[in-house]
Amino acid sequence: MIALLSPEEREAALAKLPDWTLDPDGTGIRRSFKFPNFVKAFGFMTQVALRAERADHHPEWSNIYNRVEIRLSTHECGGLSKRDVALAKKIDLLVS
Amino acid sequence: MIALLSPEEREAALAKLPDWTLDPDGTGIRRSFKFPNFVKAFGFMTQVALRAERADHHPEWSNIYNRVEIRLSTHECGGLSKRDVALAKKIDLLVS
Repeated sequence: MIALLSPEEREAALAKLPDWTLDPDGTGIRRSFKFPNFVKAFGFMTQVALRAERADHHPEWSNIYNRVEIRLSTHECGGLSKRDVALAKKIDLLVS
Repeated sequence: MIALLSPEEREAALAKLPDWTLDPDGTGIRRSFKFPNFVKAFGFMTQVALRAERADHHPEWSNIYNRVEIRLSTHECGGLSKRDVALAKKIDLLVS
């Protein structure tokens, strides 16, 4: 069973993820991305998909043309876990 | 400028797309898909993405693990056009 982050762990993790926003209920984090076009947006999604599958931890996400919205949350524990933090860091590296 | 479908054209098109649901305001059509796992779901999305890019007509869509929700609408005319019907038919072929 994957554990929920404690409030202290969550605060420390979010400090290192300044582009992500905590959901009002604290159960997930979100980030929006904008690319020059659909090819760039879906290329990014493909990179995220491969990393997500490798980690066996998958995003909730949507795409409209050049925009991608990602929410990370851990279903097994009903909130944020270290898996979300790890995937968010990998995603940030793709666009940094 | 791409034209909106007339009510008659829309009705005729939807009769051939029985798995798609018209939005209450008539501006788009939606279909939900469920796959065995994320790899199958994202593989399907990749096939749709390539067809969408080739047609220069892109879906609004979201994915959570093995589920994909697609909405088709034509931004240029603020509603349904023949482009949506053509892409819906291509998508249906991928899962038929």
